[in-house]
Amino acid sequence: MEDNLLSEQEGSGTRRGRGAGGGAAARRAARSGGGPGVQQTYINRKIKVYDVLDEEGLALIEKNAEIVLEEVGIEFRDDAEALALWKQAGADVKGERVHFPKGLCRSLLKTAPSIYTQHARNAARSVQIGGNATVFAPVYGPPFVRDLDGNRRYATIEDFNNFVKLAYMAPSIHHSGGTVCEPVDVPVNKRHLDMIYAHMRYSDKPFMGSVTAPERAEDTIAMCKILFGEKFVDENTVLTSLINANSPMVFDETMLGALKVYARNNQACIVTPFILAGAMSPVTVAGTLTQVLAEVLAGASFTQLIRPGAPVIFGTFASSISMQSGAPTFGTPEPSLVSYGAAQLARRLGLPFRTGGSLCASKVPDAQAAYESANTLNSTVLAGTNFVLHAAGWLEGGLASCYEKFMMDIDQLGMQQKFCEGVDLSENGQAMDAIRQVGPGSHYLGCDHTQANFQSAFYRSSIADNNSYEQWLAEGQKSAPQRANELARRWLESYEAPHLDEGIDEALKDFIAKRKESMPDAFT
Amino acid sequence: MEDNLLSEQEGSGTRRGRGAGGGAAARRAARSGGGPGVQQTYINRKIKVYDVLDEEGLALIEKNAEIVLEEVGIEFRDDAEALALWKQAGADVKGERVHFPKGLCRSLLKTAPSIYTQHARNAARSVQIGGNATVFAPVYGPPFVRDLDGNRRYATIEDFNNFVKLAYMAPSIHHSGGTVCEPVDVPVNKRHLDMIYAHMRYSDKPFMGSVTAPERAEDTIAMCKILFGEKFVDENTVLTSLINANSPMVFDETMLGALKVYARNNQACIVTPFILAGAMSPVTVAGTLTQVLAEVLAGASFTQLIRPGAPVIFGTFASSISMQSGAPTFGTPEPSLVSYGAAQLARRLGLPFRTGGSLCASKVPDAQAAYESANTLNSTVLAGTNFVLHAAGWLEGGLASCYEKFMMDIDQLGMQQKFCEGVDLSENGQAMDAIRQVGPGSHYLGCDHTQANFQSAFYRSSIADNNSYEQWLAEGQKSAPQRANELARRWLESYEAPHLDEGIDEALKDFIAKRKESMPDAFT
Repeated sequence: MEDNLLSEQEGSGTRRGRGAGGGAAARRAARSGGGPGVQQTYINRKIKVYDVLDEEGLALIEKNAEIVLEEVGIEFRDDAEALALWKQAGADVKGERVHFPKGLCRSLLKTAPSIYTQHARNAARSVQIGGNATVFAPVYGPPFVRDLDGNRRYATIEDFNNFVKLAYMAPSIHHSGGTVCEPVDVPVNKRHLDMIYAHMRYSDKPFMGSVTAPERAEDTIAMCKILFGEKFVDENTVLTSLINANSPMVFDETMLGALKVYARNNQACIVTPFILAGAMSPVTVAGTLTQVLAEVLAGASFTQLIRPGAPVIFGTFASSISMQSGAPTFGTPEPSLVSYGAAQLARRLGLPFRTGGSLCASKVPDAQAAYESANTLNSTVLAGTNFVLHAAGWLEGGLASCYEKFMMDIDQLGMQQKFCEGVDLSENGQAMDAIRQVGPGSHYLGCDHTQANFQSAFYRSSIADNNSYEQWLAEGQKSAPQRANELARRWLESYEAPHLDEGIDEALKDFIAKRKESMPDAFT
Repeated sequence: MEDNLLSEQEGSGTRRGRGAGGGAAARRAARSGGGPGVQQTYINRKIKVYDVLDEEGLALIEKNAEIVLEEVGIEFRDDAEALALWKQAGADVKGERVHFPKGLCRSLLKTAPSIYTQHARNAARSVQIGGNATVFAPVYGPPFVRDLDGNRRYATIEDFNNFVKLAYMAPSIHHSGGTVCEPVDVPVNKRHLDMIYAHMRYSDKPFMGSVTAPERAEDTIAMCKILFGEKFVDENTVLTSLINANSPMVFDETMLGALKVYARNNQACIVTPFILAGAMSPVTVAGTLTQVLAEVLAGASFTQLIRPGAPVIFGTFASSISMQSGAPTFGTPEPSLVSYGAAQLARRLGLPFRTGGSLCASKVPDAQAAYESANTLNSTVLAGTNFVLHAAGWLEGGLASCYEKFMMDIDQLGMQQKFCEGVDLSENGQAMDAIRQVGPGSHYLGCDHTQANFQSAFYRSSIADNNSYEQWLAEGQKSAPQRANELARRWLESYEAPHLDEGIDEALKDFIAKRKESMPDAFT
């Protein structure tokens, strides 16, 4: 009975998914086994969120954050416009230090949406940000890669394109992300053009804009207008971009410049205190949460001064430092508590929330990397996080994008997506007929209910080896990263770009060429 | 400022812990760095549990379980006494199949305690089972070990003793467990004597009894009476032992025999349906939960027929099978949902709960092992599990006990213990003085609050390498298992046995010698 069942299903590489579309290439790959499988839309969580603070604790932290905003204040550096806007809004501005009357920021944030749609050029890939939605996006920012030959080296634009391609193919990645690695072979002043182009050309998922200078943000908007059409960009959100606070309690000119460009264009910003607790915030969870809330209240409400109604995400990047070496640590209990607590504060503010991902400090995709990433990801998902940056590929405290880890992480993301469906309590889910049919001392392998639910029953890992020790030996004693390496190579070989209108492609290339021409060559 | 702070603390190997005692050896090792650190008592969870079912879902599964108990029934095989007891209690017995009138099992379980204390010979190591307590115990059952030389081979009594020693030294392991591996170099009929002796001699933490035959359970009780005194054992619970159901819906002679011995002696049993969903239970979560509840209701209430008031734990071992190969899989979404749901059902029954651990299917302590283990452990802890078997050392679907994975897992257990303390909302936790002192644009590394909270601030991993890439290179590019290997060797070298009264030790040895003499030599 088992033999029949198993042999019947051997070679079926289809993974269940409730995705819209997926593309002929993906379906072909899925049928042939080892392919990426059917694309999944963003997660619509059917499960509860997990809370670590009660009403009293939340109210206490909110009260303390208002004290920080009023008494200590937040600095908006080298930005006269920002200071003028804050003065006009009723804040007490002393030099570059802004002191906020109690409740001002919270009140300004009433115009920010709780939920917005970020559109993709393929409408089936548009994502909801906020509410019960969770969106996974790849690693952001690493200057290095750990490549498929086991080298750790500076990242190139080829690596960048590769990660965009892998994220495009990954069924459990809903968003193409932003700086999936830093293409350091392209001059820093021109780099953003090639990065934005890669997201537009090699993927059809939504993506993030450049934030390293206001004019690069403007370039991003201009390219979006070519891709989506000017009217569409005016009326819709097509970008979600990352604005970090310089914790503690500072926003600098660069980040404010990009924030203003995006908010003015009704595009979304993630305002994120980048916290290594113990260095950029107090060593305690409650102290860190207080500062995070104060910084987000100031930065996020500033978007509403620029343009009321512009979408803005409550961001938190939580890590602790090692008290021995000062190095950042990941996957430990304290950042998890911060993430859970910050998610609660964001919900009370009515803002979408970003934290976590698959973070780790390990230099290689080993057990340390996996323990730390899984700890971070589990708390990220149960916190009810809406936008998850660094969901795949992060290694070495964010200094390296790792191909093998990317492939392992997306498998974990698929598991989380299945988990978020919760418990099916339908008649089929209850399975009473199966229990009656099988009875004591028999087994369920061949029963009608098992046969009927075969495809959708359990998550099927693309990385895990569940075979016997003997079979694993016979197959070459491969570790998980080795299997991930093979999978990444297969995917990159079979990659097919999504269709892009030739006229649009030409227009994008023209824009990039002209912009590059206007820039000095070796400017960094 | 940072330099002062860091150099001042360099070389401090003490890990925070609120443990009672810890032993001079542990303290010495902790001071010298790299030692196990201060022993921690069982976890007293300050955090909430996570639920996946609402009232309606729970009531549905409870109703369905009662239907299974009444209509399908549970088999009690080769045990005339059990069948007679059930008949007497009002069940409808047909052959070996017992059909339970609605509510009978639940009503019998009213005499079972929600919380009990399992005593250790060192009173500071006694554990609370139930309520907000969580107790971590090592892996149980593997016939193989993956040793410190990288060999996978049959386990020996030396391995057994080693794992008992490591569990004794591990600050985050609260319980010595049972069959930490199968010492296959000792004849199967004599093995239990050496195993129980190892727990008594090489550790002072609580432990589990033999369940492979009623007379071995009797031997365990007899040895406990030597160790604790006859009166103490009569009046207290000193054993928590593992009774698996033969799912679906069968209890066999062996397990029933051991259960009866322990329950009669007022010792605790964990009644656990051992479920590979899709084979031993339906392929759905709700169907599996229904069967698990029915089996536990039957098995656990049977302990109350033997002796009302005997402690009994609601056990669940949740795994799914691969629908491709039939192999068990771990760390996937479905077993997590089963664990969360079963924990809720146990709480409603008022029984302590056991599930999960650090489970994985990987053959080596690689990223697969870590992802799967972390996924399992996170759901185990958030479910509010009271007794966590397999919390450290489990590899290869439970076929191998792995030294390296043991060391990595106990580090993860320490993190969970810290997480369970929740968010400190005291004035010190709020850290408002720190935020005021530091202000915008500075850092917290040297501020008074950081100095004052230095030791207790963050969990300090014994395995993770958080250093720079360059430093990691210079130190030999070690992976997490390599660091774990070195740590295990150091611990085993520095192990010192806890004091045991010589007279008791002699009495135990005499008992074992006499029992072994009475047994055939090569009996298996």
